[in-house]
Amino acid sequence: MAKQSKQEFVQHITPRDENFSQWYTDVVKMADLMDYTPVRGCMALKPYGNRIWELIREGLDLRFQETGHENVSMPMLIPESLLLKEAEHVEGFAPEVAWVTQGGNEELTERLAIRPTSETMFCTMFSQWVQSWRDLPMKYNQWCSVMRWEKTTRPFLRTAEFWWQEGHTVHATAEEAQEETLLMLEVYRAFIEDVLCIPLFTGQKSEKEKFAGARATYSVEAMMQDGKALQAGTTHNFGTNFSVPFEVRYQNKEGVLEYCHETSWGVSTRLIGAIIMAHGDERGLKLPPGVAPFQAVILPIAAHKGNVMDTCHQAFEQLKQAGVRVKLDDRDNVSPGWKFNEWELKGVPLRLEIGPRDIQNGVASYMRRDTFEKGTLPLDKLAEGVKGLLNDIAREMFRIADEFRLSRTADVFNMEELGEQINVGYARAMWCGSCECEDKIKDQTSASSRNMPFDQTPFADKCVCCGEPAGRVMYFAKAY
Amino acid sequence: MAKQSKQEFVQHITPRDENFSQWYTDVVKMADLMDYTPVRGCMALKPYGNRIWELIREGLDLRFQETGHENVSMPMLIPESLLLKEAEHVEGFAPEVAWVTQGGNEELTERLAIRPTSETMFCTMFSQWVQSWRDLPMKYNQWCSVMRWEKTTRPFLRTAEFWWQEGHTVHATAEEAQEETLLMLEVYRAFIEDVLCIPLFTGQKSEKEKFAGARATYSVEAMMQDGKALQAGTTHNFGTNFSVPFEVRYQNKEGVLEYCHETSWGVSTRLIGAIIMAHGDERGLKLPPGVAPFQAVILPIAAHKGNVMDTCHQAFEQLKQAGVRVKLDDRDNVSPGWKFNEWELKGVPLRLEIGPRDIQNGVASYMRRDTFEKGTLPLDKLAEGVKGLLNDIAREMFRIADEFRLSRTADVFNMEELGEQINVGYARAMWCGSCECEDKIKDQTSASSRNMPFDQTPFADKCVCCGEPAGRVMYFAKAY
Repeated sequence: MAKQSKQEFVQHITPRDENFSQWYTDVVKMADLMDYTPVRGCMALKPYGNRIWELIREGLDLRFQETGHENVSMPMLIPESLLLKEAEHVEGFAPEVAWVTQGGNEELTERLAIRPTSETMFCTMFSQWVQSWRDLPMKYNQWCSVMRWEKTTRPFLRTAEFWWQEGHTVHATAEEAQEETLLMLEVYRAFIEDVLCIPLFTGQKSEKEKFAGARATYSVEAMMQDGKALQAGTTHNFGTNFSVPFEVRYQNKEGVLEYCHETSWGVSTRLIGAIIMAHGDERGLKLPPGVAPFQAVILPIAAHKGNVMDTCHQAFEQLKQAGVRVKLDDRDNVSPGWKFNEWELKGVPLRLEIGPRDIQNGVASYMRRDTFEKGTLPLDKLAEGVKGLLNDIAREMFRIADEFRLSRTADVFNMEELGEQINVGYARAMWCGSCECEDKIKDQTSASSRNMPFDQTPFADKCVCCGEPAGRVMYFAKAY
Repeated sequence: MAKQSKQEFVQHITPRDENFSQWYTDVVKMADLMDYTPVRGCMALKPYGNRIWELIREGLDLRFQETGHENVSMPMLIPESLLLKEAEHVEGFAPEVAWVTQGGNEELTERLAIRPTSETMFCTMFSQWVQSWRDLPMKYNQWCSVMRWEKTTRPFLRTAEFWWQEGHTVHATAEEAQEETLLMLEVYRAFIEDVLCIPLFTGQKSEKEKFAGARATYSVEAMMQDGKALQAGTTHNFGTNFSVPFEVRYQNKEGVLEYCHETSWGVSTRLIGAIIMAHGDERGLKLPPGVAPFQAVILPIAAHKGNVMDTCHQAFEQLKQAGVRVKLDDRDNVSPGWKFNEWELKGVPLRLEIGPRDIQNGVASYMRRDTFEKGTLPLDKLAEGVKGLLNDIAREMFRIADEFRLSRTADVFNMEELGEQINVGYARAMWCGSCECEDKIKDQTSASSRNMPFDQTPFADKCVCCGEPAGRVMYFAKAY
């Protein structure tokens, strides 16, 4: 029975090496994270997927608060006239906006956009909320969903509606705005690396790839197991690009009106896609302990015997008390083998089995999802043991992903090398900084510039593309 | 200075007795809970108001989990064809729907509604998710915002967009659906009475006032300080009204396909309006400790002296460690008097003052926002003292509100008495159950039926309106 169930599960997952894209779709569906809906490109987050997002939200929200941000909730609709105020911004977003044109039985006199992002709404409100230097900095964030009318969509990676947070801040000086932009990039980096166990390339976007309306955009870029890049988060320094058209001004200590300096930054449910593709394997999802809805699952073995169920309940209580997110799977209509496969598919970091022999030995048997390593933990110190293992698992998941990332990153010195390397992973190249070379690279190799690392020490002197003198270090990769 | 500031604050708040409606608007604006936006009828929740909603959300979400519910996230758009599937439902909501008709540069072939509520989307997904009796009950909830194109709006009470939760559950039997409907009513009652300190009338809505598409609607109704009713939450038993058109069916243990029985239930940011109008006074907001962003505020007195600031910081840490939401107001550009008024306006339940004399006596001085009672607490047991006072405050706030409610509720036996009583508060009346009498009462007195209490012991035998035999006890009141 156990063997049969295992095969049944594994049959449904396309092997990663055979078709990574299909493997991804299989895992998303089979792990019961989301479902398609009758609205084109819009997904429903099912309880398991939604819980992962809630845990990401809780973890990040705490870090936002610790760095002095407050949450607000803005309207989901934005009048067209507001969207039009910043030229680059509207050019970037207008083609993918969903428009409300009717309210009740009336035609509206002005179209309303479902927010694709909320810079224009925040700036409108900031122009009323900010008066004096005493009001600054104003550091707000909101958790919501936004809508971008995308042509082709993929679960979590690119959907018409997606869930995200958008931070929007207002500062007195250019320096403070830049500081904030880099601070939030670091908050993202720390969370994604430490909690999601995904190593990142951190740096600045090119002029071409920056956010519509930003002076400078920074990003954290992850590497998926097919070597492709996934932009996991961005932070933008707007300078006064928005504060001038929206008249966001403050009176400085001398009583003079000055334009504010603004930033915004966001991460989205895309992070769930990143988790799947950075860590998953042939058996399914592999969740980092920090955002696993269940960090450990307890499976009773020979549940009908002696004190097996009692011991399982005690173990459950002990772990719950200690703050471990734990599930006791006491279903009696499926075999242990079925459960093994199901929880592996769902990526639960630690499986605990408790049967008569374990009880006799005063232990719980465990299996780590990351390494499949097995062992035992003393029942009387189960919580301690589990917490230690969960820490190990997180560390090991990061280490493995980082090893992979480094093995798939190389310096390239000409277009041929670049073309080869981007089939493997990231190419680090010297670049002249011209948009023409970026376009040419995109055309010839389908790789895009990802970001310029903060360490800009040149390792060659010629642009990988045009051969002209090059002062910039840039990562290139194929991207999601 | 203190006196001057006080006057300045009080000047802005219209007295409650003079103009309750204007008093409400003043408090909402001055306590900095929300702001109007350029989108008609849509508000922005500012940090203080948003935080109250977050605390309501956290408190309720825990209770939803404890009663076996899981969170999901559904699309915000609903195709028109889905909305049309249940006749009563579409009739109730179609006039107030905002329609998306354009995506990017294309005209859509089918209009998409911004969800006014999500029964139709949940049912569509349930029809795919529910297969067998083993899948039931399926008990989901989502936190989101919804849109109803209202003609006249008021902050928190009636806005085009508002934030809420909507629970949607699927059951095998009519009994289980009814049990769920009453269970969630009780969850709402307990939360609103125990945490928001607002006493409620709990019962069933009339046929006329029930939710569009429901078999039965139950509500919790609060009384505001002007004697008017505010519907604070509703739960609906749909029976098979939605499961038939949406084909939500399950295979029972005998292998036969049966229609499911469904419920839904929701509360919204309206609860913030209820808090304001149930508890607020001439000085502003009066927040129940359970959802106060700051439960206590510490004000240093003569901050420059000796160890005042050190002691304040220690007190702050002690309270924070103990889980009290505490703010240390160390601003030096406003006077203590100004701070007193500001935190009273913002409704912080407990004000703590620490000055040289307090420190000498080893105490903090306090003032309760609810009773303005003053006293002292030993500094070395500050957390204990504060927690005790917060509990007292919550109890007392409920007691006062309940006393008010009872003093404004009376039995009425004819239309004249009813007409008088609804100018004061709630009228309890015997009612024949006909919609005609409900309409007539509405026309003549502007009072609507609120709900039928579970205790239906008759206290007269004739309908308050038509004089025919009456078997139902019904509360009538003017309502928000």
